[in-house]
Amino acid sequence: MGESMGNLRRTNLCGELRVEDIGKEVVLMGWVQRERNLGSLIFIDLRDTTGISQIVFDDTISEDIFKKAEKVKSEYVLAIKGKVRKRQSINKDIPTGEIEVLVSELKILDEAQTPPIYIKDDDNVSENVRLKYRYLDLRKSFMQKNLKLRAKAAKIVRDFFDENGFIEVETPMLTKPTPEGARDYLVPSRVNPGEFYALPQSPQLMKQLLMVAGIDRYYQIVKCFRDEDLRANRQPEFTQIDVEMSFVDIEDIISINEKFIYKLFKELKNIEIELPIKRMSYKEAMNRFGVDKPDLRFGFELIDISEIVSNSEFKVFSSTIQSGGSVRGINIKGYGDQFTRKDISSLEDYAKTYGAKGLAWIKLTENGITSPVAKFLREEEFKAILDKMGAEENDLLLFVADKQSVVYDSLGNLRNEVAKRLGIIDNNQLSLVWITEFPLFEYDEDEKRYVAKHHPFTAPMEEDIDLLESSPEKVRAKAYDIVINGDEMGGGSIRINNSSLQSRMFKALGFTEEEANEKFGFLLEAFKYGTPPHGGIAYGLDRLIMTLTNSSNIRDVIAFPKTQSATCLLTDAPTNVSEGQLKEVHIKVDLEKNE
Amino acid sequence: MGESMGNLRRTNLCGELRVEDIGKEVVLMGWVQRERNLGSLIFIDLRDTTGISQIVFDDTISEDIFKKAEKVKSEYVLAIKGKVRKRQSINKDIPTGEIEVLVSELKILDEAQTPPIYIKDDDNVSENVRLKYRYLDLRKSFMQKNLKLRAKAAKIVRDFFDENGFIEVETPMLTKPTPEGARDYLVPSRVNPGEFYALPQSPQLMKQLLMVAGIDRYYQIVKCFRDEDLRANRQPEFTQIDVEMSFVDIEDIISINEKFIYKLFKELKNIEIELPIKRMSYKEAMNRFGVDKPDLRFGFELIDISEIVSNSEFKVFSSTIQSGGSVRGINIKGYGDQFTRKDISSLEDYAKTYGAKGLAWIKLTENGITSPVAKFLREEEFKAILDKMGAEENDLLLFVADKQSVVYDSLGNLRNEVAKRLGIIDNNQLSLVWITEFPLFEYDEDEKRYVAKHHPFTAPMEEDIDLLESSPEKVRAKAYDIVINGDEMGGGSIRINNSSLQSRMFKALGFTEEEANEKFGFLLEAFKYGTPPHGGIAYGLDRLIMTLTNSSNIRDVIAFPKTQSATCLLTDAPTNVSEGQLKEVHIKVDLEKNE
Repeated sequence: MGESMGNLRRTNLCGELRVEDIGKEVVLMGWVQRERNLGSLIFIDLRDTTGISQIVFDDTISEDIFKKAEKVKSEYVLAIKGKVRKRQSINKDIPTGEIEVLVSELKILDEAQTPPIYIKDDDNVSENVRLKYRYLDLRKSFMQKNLKLRAKAAKIVRDFFDENGFIEVETPMLTKPTPEGARDYLVPSRVNPGEFYALPQSPQLMKQLLMVAGIDRYYQIVKCFRDEDLRANRQPEFTQIDVEMSFVDIEDIISINEKFIYKLFKELKNIEIELPIKRMSYKEAMNRFGVDKPDLRFGFELIDISEIVSNSEFKVFSSTIQSGGSVRGINIKGYGDQFTRKDISSLEDYAKTYGAKGLAWIKLTENGITSPVAKFLREEEFKAILDKMGAEENDLLLFVADKQSVVYDSLGNLRNEVAKRLGIIDNNQLSLVWITEFPLFEYDEDEKRYVAKHHPFTAPMEEDIDLLESSPEKVRAKAYDIVINGDEMGGGSIRINNSSLQSRMFKALGFTEEEANEKFGFLLEAFKYGTPPHGGIAYGLDRLIMTLTNSSNIRDVIAFPKTQSATCLLTDAPTNVSEGQLKEVHIKVDLEKNE
Repeated sequence: MGESMGNLRRTNLCGELRVEDIGKEVVLMGWVQRERNLGSLIFIDLRDTTGISQIVFDDTISEDIFKKAEKVKSEYVLAIKGKVRKRQSINKDIPTGEIEVLVSELKILDEAQTPPIYIKDDDNVSENVRLKYRYLDLRKSFMQKNLKLRAKAAKIVRDFFDENGFIEVETPMLTKPTPEGARDYLVPSRVNPGEFYALPQSPQLMKQLLMVAGIDRYYQIVKCFRDEDLRANRQPEFTQIDVEMSFVDIEDIISINEKFIYKLFKELKNIEIELPIKRMSYKEAMNRFGVDKPDLRFGFELIDISEIVSNSEFKVFSSTIQSGGSVRGINIKGYGDQFTRKDISSLEDYAKTYGAKGLAWIKLTENGITSPVAKFLREEEFKAILDKMGAEENDLLLFVADKQSVVYDSLGNLRNEVAKRLGIIDNNQLSLVWITEFPLFEYDEDEKRYVAKHHPFTAPMEEDIDLLESSPEKVRAKAYDIVINGDEMGGGSIRINNSSLQSRMFKALGFTEEEANEKFGFLLEAFKYGTPPHGGIAYGLDRLIMTLTNSSNIRDVIAFPKTQSATCLLTDAPTNVSEGQLKEVHIKVDLEKNE
């Protein structure tokens, strides 16, 4: 089984033959997409990465070859020589549909068992089967397109940053475990018994060191690792477009990155993004959309009705406000008739997953107003609410009363969920926005201290520096995220390059000088020898490619992804290893009974 | 300390100003390379990644600024505004040597302590200090040049393969531990207790799966990992240019790669490599040079004198031959007078490190012949040896008698060492050669079985397939290495795409079907569904960059390298981690007392 190519060499790819090629002698190689045996004629659709050509065997060839062709099945690998000719029944669905190749020579380069996956985009097989037979799944046209677009995107990234004086520098994969941030993947050292490397969560410190080193402009497309519980569309290893620049402030970074984003969409999708890209402060984003990555392709903005109901007899509302929370609502304008009580109840369940204790609602129909909370509210309160919400017939109003973070989180996500359920999001529309003026700190309830929202080297906005000690929660950071269609595609900040400011920052984080040195000693040491003002950004490449390919599944843009339990169904990684292998790196497995 | 840039924005880089810019107002930012205070005049050399500009402070500026300038020391970070003017004493050593900038505005962006490293190429500091303060070391002009050339090389690689229809595909970093080959770096899994990932030694299996997936042409610049004892110029993580193609045989791969190598040298060094590149079989390389990566820039080829001395009374020679070994020599032609007895004795010590038991020698001077072995040899034997070796006055002949592998290894390396000691290797000369027809197997003395020299999926040469069972040691592989100046820069092979041949290969390696499945199950499974003929190559990028920059130290072409004990002196990785972190990934440290 399996002939060699012999002297045959491909002259053409299966997807490129056209009427202009009629009369040419060609050699094609590829996989059998399908074959039809009509007795005296055999038609085969031969597929390679560029497309499909129809090849024909008729009685002009030797019986031997014809007999060989009769044995051919789906996914056999063939090499054929033949003459391009006009096709009798034209297939307008494929670019090669006007021609076919009359075969004069056939080699079966490899046979194939019946594959467990049909090689077509809508095979409807379970994702686990797709992942186990990934090499077959990747034969599908849409997966090949996704991988090619990803490669093209990477090329555009590199071309752009290269043209703009950025130097691609490789940073190490075997790095020092990080004291702050997400959980590290650890790598035991053989040469240094009892010690461990960590895989990088990002090259953050290394790229800042490159700025100290005078590299001026750095970029890299780089694998990063976070050992976190995997939500949908997260992978333990992911790819980052990592950028850092010296002698810049926010505007310089935003401006060059807008040119980059423009180029990316122009060259990949022929979409001309309007520059400058819209900006919105973190505060505005939270107030209007409840999230710091708002999808601006639809309305349903959050409206604060706290003032109206602050003294309401409806205690669910008023007591929430009195204890520092708020009551806000969204108006699902013009879609009231799309939601039954059952639907609304399902929305309430959804809101509860974000911590809301319940969902108050008012529905305005042609037959009047229904609302389970109406009876608790005074008439003028109710009227004021309708007024504030801009309520009209066929609107559905949804309210959450809770502490601020829960109100934002539940209504912000509910807003997205409702739009998704209504199917009103136009996937061809693009909404881009920079979110700026993030808080520098957030309060960690577990650790009972402020932690850096971005990372401890993010610079505060100059006008807020005086608040560092007195009101750290009010200090805004020189940080920015780029949000596309409600997803954070990238983010970054200007870094602190001033050691006294850095000390104040550490103090605000509750670190003693000693602790700061222990955690970040080598960076602080580096900062003593002349550090330029610098800042940068990092994009999630996987997410960008999802947006660019309209994929909803991150695994559709990665060749060999992992499942949500961080396994590879194709290779069966991770696996057990021998005692000997563990001994060599000075560790043992430690399985606790109660796990 | 540390002013902000305020409204100042760089207009120019320090290395780019020329006489054409005279009269222009410019803003420069950079580090103080040196400052000279002449009382009423202060000169500062301001450095950024592009070069140096001289900036001048005189009495035309305010006293405040002048006083500020007086405080400036080496490696301070400055932003200055000023006017370009002609320089009085021209400095022909730097491209900006005809101009200077008269400063009107100065901001000290950051101060600097006295750095532990002078920022100049020949600072003569120990490598450990260089690595600890890498961010200062990287400020040196030659290190910046090396990193820039590396980035440019990566760009050329990507442009070339991209233009030729290759698709860049990212393969996983968290992979399955490999049963064959070098030692893996292991990564314990948190989600799958007791199980481990391995960092990839190379994406070999993944790229073959991409060929099964119909990707057709793949490339990637990718980090690979081998936990081996580090010899000089080895790093635990290294970067590979990884390439694989479908529907090809050796000639197709060599031909496209020659075009790639041509482009690389042309664009980076303006050197036009002669195509096609020379080829040499493994056998010829071993016979003539003793190594499979011969440096062709000098002579001193190996000459076999076994036939002459096979029956010699000098038992050291004859008994070696009778027990299957050989006696070979090299003629250090024309350099006899360069070697004293002490030098030769040192060469003998060198040969012994490669297993030779001794080094026989004959030196021909104008005063006659000296040789410690002459007395053991019959006159006609001695004469025949001189004759065979082409010996003339001022030659030094060096011989090793041993089993084949030791003769090759010791003489082959000795040949290189002698040329190095003589300083006769022209670093501007390039010698490229493909080594082909490698043996498919080598015998593993420890495991007492044949192991794959390349890897178990390498195809045998068609004319040798019949020898697989009868004389596996004679089977040559469809494998090839590209050797530049005596270093292997890359290598690859055509892979087996025929399952019956693959079974015979496994049998030859001593694997039962079960073992083969256990080790390579998923690849063998993949091969059942239609595998195209395919093959590829991988280049060591670090080594290529060493060659392209004439570096002798691999750490000079890597931004943040590790020491020979696999540590990072900058960050102190690897380090201890907390018990808690280890518990989370279900391992404990296991330090044996007797280690």
